[in-house]
Amino acid sequence: MFFKTRTHTCGELREVNIGDSVILNGWVDTRRDLGGLIFIDIRDRYGITQIVFEPGFNAEAHLAAGSLRNEFVVSIEGKVRKRPEGTENPALPTGNVDVMVSRLVILNEAKTPPFQIKDDVDTSEDVRLKYRYLDLRRPSMQKNILMRHKMYQIVRQYFDKNNFIEVETPVLMKSTPEGARDYLVPSRLHKGKFYALPQSPQQYKQLLMVSGLDRYFQIVKCFRDEDLRADRQPEFTQIDVEMSFIDQQNIFDIVEGLMKILFKEIWNKDLPVIPKLTFDEAMEKYGSDKPDLRVDLQMVTLNHVFENTSFKVFNDSIKNNGIISGLLAPGCGEYTRNQLDVLTDYVKKLGAGGLIWMRVKESASGTELEAPIAKFLSDDEKKNIIESLNAKPGDLLFILTGSKLKTLSIMGQLRLEMARRLDLIKLNAEPKLLWVTDFPLFEWDEQTKRFYAMHHPFTSPRLEDVEFMESDPSKVKARAYDLVLNGTEIAGGSIRIHNADLQSKMFKALGITDEEAEHKFGFLMNAFKFGAPPHGGIAFGFDRMAMIFAGESSIREVIAFPKTASAISLMDEAPSLVDEDQLKELHIKIR
Amino acid sequence: MFFKTRTHTCGELREVNIGDSVILNGWVDTRRDLGGLIFIDIRDRYGITQIVFEPGFNAEAHLAAGSLRNEFVVSIEGKVRKRPEGTENPALPTGNVDVMVSRLVILNEAKTPPFQIKDDVDTSEDVRLKYRYLDLRRPSMQKNILMRHKMYQIVRQYFDKNNFIEVETPVLMKSTPEGARDYLVPSRLHKGKFYALPQSPQQYKQLLMVSGLDRYFQIVKCFRDEDLRADRQPEFTQIDVEMSFIDQQNIFDIVEGLMKILFKEIWNKDLPVIPKLTFDEAMEKYGSDKPDLRVDLQMVTLNHVFENTSFKVFNDSIKNNGIISGLLAPGCGEYTRNQLDVLTDYVKKLGAGGLIWMRVKESASGTELEAPIAKFLSDDEKKNIIESLNAKPGDLLFILTGSKLKTLSIMGQLRLEMARRLDLIKLNAEPKLLWVTDFPLFEWDEQTKRFYAMHHPFTSPRLEDVEFMESDPSKVKARAYDLVLNGTEIAGGSIRIHNADLQSKMFKALGITDEEAEHKFGFLMNAFKFGAPPHGGIAFGFDRMAMIFAGESSIREVIAFPKTASAISLMDEAPSLVDEDQLKELHIKIR
Repeated sequence: MFFKTRTHTCGELREVNIGDSVILNGWVDTRRDLGGLIFIDIRDRYGITQIVFEPGFNAEAHLAAGSLRNEFVVSIEGKVRKRPEGTENPALPTGNVDVMVSRLVILNEAKTPPFQIKDDVDTSEDVRLKYRYLDLRRPSMQKNILMRHKMYQIVRQYFDKNNFIEVETPVLMKSTPEGARDYLVPSRLHKGKFYALPQSPQQYKQLLMVSGLDRYFQIVKCFRDEDLRADRQPEFTQIDVEMSFIDQQNIFDIVEGLMKILFKEIWNKDLPVIPKLTFDEAMEKYGSDKPDLRVDLQMVTLNHVFENTSFKVFNDSIKNNGIISGLLAPGCGEYTRNQLDVLTDYVKKLGAGGLIWMRVKESASGTELEAPIAKFLSDDEKKNIIESLNAKPGDLLFILTGSKLKTLSIMGQLRLEMARRLDLIKLNAEPKLLWVTDFPLFEWDEQTKRFYAMHHPFTSPRLEDVEFMESDPSKVKARAYDLVLNGTEIAGGSIRIHNADLQSKMFKALGITDEEAEHKFGFLMNAFKFGAPPHGGIAFGFDRMAMIFAGESSIREVIAFPKTASAISLMDEAPSLVDEDQLKELHIKIR
Repeated sequence: MFFKTRTHTCGELREVNIGDSVILNGWVDTRRDLGGLIFIDIRDRYGITQIVFEPGFNAEAHLAAGSLRNEFVVSIEGKVRKRPEGTENPALPTGNVDVMVSRLVILNEAKTPPFQIKDDVDTSEDVRLKYRYLDLRRPSMQKNILMRHKMYQIVRQYFDKNNFIEVETPVLMKSTPEGARDYLVPSRLHKGKFYALPQSPQQYKQLLMVSGLDRYFQIVKCFRDEDLRADRQPEFTQIDVEMSFIDQQNIFDIVEGLMKILFKEIWNKDLPVIPKLTFDEAMEKYGSDKPDLRVDLQMVTLNHVFENTSFKVFNDSIKNNGIISGLLAPGCGEYTRNQLDVLTDYVKKLGAGGLIWMRVKESASGTELEAPIAKFLSDDEKKNIIESLNAKPGDLLFILTGSKLKTLSIMGQLRLEMARRLDLIKLNAEPKLLWVTDFPLFEWDEQTKRFYAMHHPFTSPRLEDVEFMESDPSKVKARAYDLVLNGTEIAGGSIRIHNADLQSKMFKALGITDEEAEHKFGFLMNAFKFGAPPHGGIAFGFDRMAMIFAGESSIREVIAFPKTASAISLMDEAPSLVDEDQLKELHIKIR
């Protein structure tokens, strides 16, 4: 039990330490017993050092070392020596030296772990999560947790330097009638009443702007009780930001400054100028409001080609305000009929009526299109398609048509599918960041036949669109923006409505009565009456951002103690049954 | 609605800006209408600037200014000028200049606030909390929130620099059977099961040590569903710290380094060496395990004086392992009988049998004691009392006797009461920080006739005391320590048990069976079997620490959106009723 505190970590010793007496503390990583000599790698968070037990150097320590097993915790004293020539390990920073042990204290023994503590671990994720405390010993997990630590510090220091104030907002807040995905917390002191856990601190950060705090940020846990989804967590972390007396560009500037530092500090990359696409552009070119720009394929809207077409499908589409969208699949001209059937099935499952394809061929008279529908198209139209898509012989073309957003979205998925087939996303591809702006303010819901706020009901319309809020809500764009990295939305925000008149118009467009508004957003609406400044903000999905920066494909790889897709902690088995007495105290029972 | 972003904040303009064209955004703080001229102070988080509307300078702006009222939000353009001689305001950093307004945009109107936005606000705390967003506009609240922000950054930068890793631990965790004060969260996906909100991340931080993360910290929200208590919050913030391969002194060193920076950065004070008192010393000298060392009064244990006394009360006390504790009240020798009766009542209410008092008098033969019990004491004993307490003529002495901890605790409260009466705690007194160490490992509970862990069941005993764990648990001291600032415990921690044998002994001493231990602490105990390093840590009450650093007497003054003592948010009225549908989804109903 008595031991001496380390003089060095297990990642620290170098040739300059040769001859030093040192104390190391750590875990037995590997053990080689060469009859007389015992070599052990001891490991801590900082690295690995080889230690040597030699009967001639210290018989007692050598004897004790015989009982060491993997993952035992030890404290050793010894002398640093140069490794004998030919036995250096250039893979280890400490690989030119080892430590001749004069004293060994076994601080703790260890059962054989259920999987080996190494990076390419051969076990299921469930076992890793059950024994997360062992999984976290693996160097790759420690690297991720350390990178996440670094990101926290970078983010906070950046906002601090830019005069933002960190404010903690409540975790036990009011449940809103819209809070179908709220986690609720029964109150013991107030029978029959409940707190809710925040899905985001949205209302609080807007109140802080009313308070005049001017620039706010927080790295904060949020909660959403969603149905099972593969890469979601019931609790997730957000970088939450709000500013007063600003417009979109100020938010962009602040965020770009942060991304620049993260790119440099985490990836050692210079951030290029972040391109901006409007929602409409992003949809038409990439079929997504979070396009992955690492994929070079672009969709092209072909409506102009078919303005006077006699091909009924396209003609109808144009008449119905639909869209005709084309995609070039370079070098795929020789796809078999079977391959094309599979792709047709793919888009049909996504809701498309069918997939129009055309092979681009070389012919005596130039470039030609070979396709089942070729006969319905004029020569001009064919020429125009080829030009618009910049098609070359040997390429394949896809065309989808139908209602605008749906068609573009399906084509966007086909685009990504083709990228996968063509292996267009390389592991070492340059990361691609972009802003998507000018989202529609409203989304029309076919089922309930009404408009919903695409973002939230406090999102400001573009000022030039306010006049259409009553006459044609679908035309109104929001001052809302998303930041997209490699096809993942990592942040989203908006300029808020700070003006009571405009807020009324918004509620009216959403079919929310004054009474409802009062009930749902009462205290916030009330606060706005006492002098709300113009303000706006943004919130980053920290877990997803960390995942991308760590080069992982699941957020669970960057969360110390994550839950499964069904919101269970395999380590401690939460959620769990509780005593009836506890429920009584909380004035609830199971139904 | 259209406005220009500020060129300067309202705290920024100085004489060097004279002649500049500027744009300011802010709130109308005060307004003086001098017929022709209108003077307005506009305010933001950074300060206050006077702006001037002169009909001759700009008639339109002057006209518009007529409608301005307090707390209106404005954007103004204008020219900075030197204030006319004699009208400077030296109380404002911007007080030598003002801005002649050429353009005024009213960004938002404001209802008359329920209280004035100023520091010495004349309203109840309830009203302040209901309109917290206005309360937070007051400069003193903004100062507190800013100071808190600064503390967050100092703390994190300090731990980061010292190689600690910030790790977020789960908020939705497992409910423990001991968790009588847990907030519970019903699971929608798993009928009849519940998560609990953490009272502290204790188990997780110990798991992180098992993971080899070595040095962990986090500023983290914790939750405790306590009964109504004046200065508690259902959710509170903790600085949570844990280290591996260390002993107490390493924790002390790390904490002292942090306190040094906080003292300097927040108070501009050099931190003196932090004294250490054992629990026993603290109790005997100050009657408290969190003594306020700003009060110079010390208690003195007088048992040695009465070893052979014939005074029955003292004699009995000594025979029963009790204590005789004395306190000097300097200069109180002339207290009236009535004053002494009040003090006697005071200690009796706290559970004392009575209060022995003695007046110290000058007499021909030297210093004498005048007291009802004087006749029972020998001359030697009287002399010895005077010497032990260093009493001078004109002083008053108190003696309490009885069972040790109870008597010392009552005397400690009498000590503080005398400090208040003697006005010994000055507002500008130097802050006093100290460590209290060597707490008892166990607390005996008279009611259940068993020992409880004073800290928690993973707290390590002093190694030299392990031998008494079975034979005499009351003798065993813990490797547990508290950090006390001005009589408030601001942090507490311990070295943990990392060894399975010792942990068994501990459970045995606490009367916890193996089965119970498995049920209560199963996954942690299991983790410890895979190679737990020696480790220990500490946790700071961030809110209380911020309160003291801000010079406030309630933690609500340093929390942006606090709840009341009955855990209600007056602003949004949480907790609140929820829809029956929501409860159905969660498989619970009100009982």
